[in-house]
Amino acid sequence: MPKYSIGVDFGTLSGRALVVNVETGEELGSAVMEYRHGVIDERLPGGKKLGLDWALQHPMDYIEVLKEVIPKALRESGVFADDVIGLGIDFTACTLTPVKADGTPLCLLPEWEDNPHAYIKLWKHHAAQDQANRINALAERRGEKWLPRYGGKISSEWALPKILQTLEEAPEVYDAADYFIEAGDWVVWTLTGRQSRNACMAGYKAIYHKRDGYPSKEFLRELHPRLENLVQDKLDCAVSPLGAKAGETTEHARLIGLRPGIAVAVANIDAHVAAPAAKAAPGAMLAIIGTSTCHIVMGGEEKTVPGMCGVVEDGVYPGFFGFEAGQSCVGDHFAWFVENCVPAEYIDEAKARGIGAHDLLTEKAAKLKPGQSGLVALDWWNGNRSVLVDVDLTGLMIGMTLATKPEEMYCALIEATAFGTRVIVENFRESGVPVDSFIAAGGVASKNPTLMRIYADTLRMPIRIAGSAQGSALGSAIFGAVAAGAAAGGYGSVLDASAKMGKLLDIVYEPIPSNADVYDKLYAEYKELHDWFGRGGSGAMKRLKRIKKEAVE
Amino acid sequence: MPKYSIGVDFGTLSGRALVVNVETGEELGSAVMEYRHGVIDERLPGGKKLGLDWALQHPMDYIEVLKEVIPKALRESGVFADDVIGLGIDFTACTLTPVKADGTPLCLLPEWEDNPHAYIKLWKHHAAQDQANRINALAERRGEKWLPRYGGKISSEWALPKILQTLEEAPEVYDAADYFIEAGDWVVWTLTGRQSRNACMAGYKAIYHKRDGYPSKEFLRELHPRLENLVQDKLDCAVSPLGAKAGETTEHARLIGLRPGIAVAVANIDAHVAAPAAKAAPGAMLAIIGTSTCHIVMGGEEKTVPGMCGVVEDGVYPGFFGFEAGQSCVGDHFAWFVENCVPAEYIDEAKARGIGAHDLLTEKAAKLKPGQSGLVALDWWNGNRSVLVDVDLTGLMIGMTLATKPEEMYCALIEATAFGTRVIVENFRESGVPVDSFIAAGGVASKNPTLMRIYADTLRMPIRIAGSAQGSALGSAIFGAVAAGAAAGGYGSVLDASAKMGKLLDIVYEPIPSNADVYDKLYAEYKELHDWFGRGGSGAMKRLKRIKKEAVE
Repeated sequence: MPKYSIGVDFGTLSGRALVVNVETGEELGSAVMEYRHGVIDERLPGGKKLGLDWALQHPMDYIEVLKEVIPKALRESGVFADDVIGLGIDFTACTLTPVKADGTPLCLLPEWEDNPHAYIKLWKHHAAQDQANRINALAERRGEKWLPRYGGKISSEWALPKILQTLEEAPEVYDAADYFIEAGDWVVWTLTGRQSRNACMAGYKAIYHKRDGYPSKEFLRELHPRLENLVQDKLDCAVSPLGAKAGETTEHARLIGLRPGIAVAVANIDAHVAAPAAKAAPGAMLAIIGTSTCHIVMGGEEKTVPGMCGVVEDGVYPGFFGFEAGQSCVGDHFAWFVENCVPAEYIDEAKARGIGAHDLLTEKAAKLKPGQSGLVALDWWNGNRSVLVDVDLTGLMIGMTLATKPEEMYCALIEATAFGTRVIVENFRESGVPVDSFIAAGGVASKNPTLMRIYADTLRMPIRIAGSAQGSALGSAIFGAVAAGAAAGGYGSVLDASAKMGKLLDIVYEPIPSNADVYDKLYAEYKELHDWFGRGGSGAMKRLKRIKKEAVE
Repeated sequence: MPKYSIGVDFGTLSGRALVVNVETGEELGSAVMEYRHGVIDERLPGGKKLGLDWALQHPMDYIEVLKEVIPKALRESGVFADDVIGLGIDFTACTLTPVKADGTPLCLLPEWEDNPHAYIKLWKHHAAQDQANRINALAERRGEKWLPRYGGKISSEWALPKILQTLEEAPEVYDAADYFIEAGDWVVWTLTGRQSRNACMAGYKAIYHKRDGYPSKEFLRELHPRLENLVQDKLDCAVSPLGAKAGETTEHARLIGLRPGIAVAVANIDAHVAAPAAKAAPGAMLAIIGTSTCHIVMGGEEKTVPGMCGVVEDGVYPGFFGFEAGQSCVGDHFAWFVENCVPAEYIDEAKARGIGAHDLLTEKAAKLKPGQSGLVALDWWNGNRSVLVDVDLTGLMIGMTLATKPEEMYCALIEATAFGTRVIVENFRESGVPVDSFIAAGGVASKNPTLMRIYADTLRMPIRIAGSAQGSALGSAIFGAVAAGAAAGGYGSVLDASAKMGKLLDIVYEPIPSNADVYDKLYAEYKELHDWFGRGGSGAMKRLKRIKKEAVE
């Protein structure tokens, strides 16, 4: 009798369920639902106005999603609820909520419903930058050994800045919160009736280390006297490796169309969960290419890699160190170009042919030989995440002549993102983390062969493409099957489950050596500019940002 | 009884006559005519195909212009031919023709009409680059003292490369030519019946120096054994300062609606002749801003200024040293941007408002505060003429973010040309050539107040604008009045004539100190990039050009 697993992927605006055959990985049914409140960035439901850079969510939206999409996906799949053996959840992160000891989010309590700090702070809540700056400065001054694991800087999006902001701006909320918990862990809690925390979110977003734990009491006390006991008071819960079973569905499972007793995996981050869905084994770099790119690669040893986003043991697959790096501006780069730099003539041509501006530019770019544009760009329109970790860097393009065409500039932007990826790959290798192969996921990967060819030539590696259009939900279903265990018809390890349920497209983009030779030369130019403007040769970008700031003030 | 002078301006595609009141400078009538053969760059009139980069003209086109536009302009002005006392000619240069001893261009002789080398090589004939390279290499090796006067490099557009190309590719034409002469001098010859040569074209385009003469026999012999006697054999004619009288119209003057005996000034280059029309006195830099910009400033002493285009005694006004510098890409820069980088939305807005894309971008750019864009560009899309004298440099823009708008990039290109001008001004000053004031001429100057304001702020100098829309023709008329002399109702000096007949607009663009302070900071960024990429810090631009060349080969 075939068994099934369900993955539920909670994104920024909607949640999606996917029913998957555990043996074959076949995707049998799916359903999606937008969050009723979406991103709360202007006013609380009760009308209270929010400050600049705030971004909140409402916990009931997630519960509604569970009630709606799981039964719907099951109906579409034709699968009986009794044949579902596992359930996995992935979530945006750090998306953090204060809760009571029983798991009730503060904002659901009438006395807190008008306090913004009682709500879930979404990953892109950016109002804790000041707190992040102070955390970084203090950690650097004290020489905290966790800082290098995060490329020397933690982000304002992470847990500690969000918690510190709550403490400083709403100490009453801080006091009332028995726990601060990732929304992903909280959803798992509501399913299983018991709290769990996952190594991925704890490691990448809450500065947790398998052996060293969270930041020390001394550090936290110096950051804020009242934070000293943060860990024991408000984060106190074992951290489980990915693939672990958080628990089983309770009697309440009927409310979402499932039976009680189904294994529920610990939660996972929506990007990282895509790794097993794309059969990413240790040594294979997975690049999830969207508006930005997230790079994940697993290795057998903990290494300090300059300028990566983080390294977490058990943070992707249990038993391995998961390394993460990132590029801030990839799809955003091309979108900016199309919005701001494409002449009317091109738009007219695209319209006449019934294709998009991206398609037309890509088609024209595909006809260019490597090096033909004479251009090189730095992909820093949105700063640089890895390996320079510097949001104040900006864009650069060099080599324009009066004969330069739009498709040449567009191609230079594509190449810039390829070169940025190569910097990351080489940086890992130089730091002792092998990168043997390359898998691309995300919409751009499956839709843009020209881009993938340029990446293959630039990296001099064959590039394979993730096979599922719903990679995160498939990944969650895989973790659900692992949580169920082999005895129940699931799997004993993530690698086994990934090998059977993961998917790659048939196509492989092989590097063409003669192109790769030219890209070596262009990469040398990129690298020279990268190091000159990014590592202190010229501070022009930062000075221009300062001049700009003074101009608009 | 009022007296009149006529200026005839021979451009690349057409010739124009202007009738001017000698006392007041009032422009009374004008007429223009396109050349029948235009630029001959594909086939000779007889059908013979030309090579790449060739650009020729036909001498009869100029004669037709004289016959057409002078009578027409006179008719329009209502001036009687008998009241015309002077005639001046300006021309593109170096636009060179081989002629027989009597002044007959070789291409008019049936035996030569199918030989491309017998035609007039237009200034933008670029097929002698190989010859120019060898001339430069030899001059540098021999340490020729004229080389620094031309910024260390002569252009393939100049006389010696064109003559050497003729000798090497068509020795029979070289042998048949009794003279090689500028088309401007040749037109004056047809008017006066006697050969003359002018200091401006000889100095700026034929490496002539008032005291040292042309390049030495030794140099010419080493360049090509048969060139040894080039000067005495084929250039043998006194070189006259500007403002000198070349002669008087002959009996043939009736054919062009004039009386015999009118004073004809020696020819002049179309850019340089604009100086007296804009009242440019010594120490005032005149910038003729078009697709590219030509800068002219006069000084009392000969100075070696690194990277200028040339210094010529009597080359602009007699009695002064005329210094020339240039920017290769100004109007071309903005035209490139409008053609390649303006989104459809902007074009639609401009159309809806009945204005051009340039106007819309300029209007939006005018609303930006200095420094607000966060951008700096290098104005090298077409190489750098002064002060780096390097055609292989290319464009650069730095500072882009995802919020960067088209008008900010457009503004950065305007600012880049302003910074390029400031480099030239500072370079002259540092070399001991005073630049006390600044006058802008050309279409851009009168049509784009935003650009002129940016120039004023960047240069921290008030900018005045040339008053005539036909500055070259007016300048030629001024030289005609000087050639006529004070006794005939003209003038005794170019300065006197310029003061009376020259014109400036009433408007003065005054620098705004607070803006200038910001532009000082932006200029420092420009200068750092300028020196890094232009003076050997990074060879990226040249390497990219090489990679590009290899890619398309």
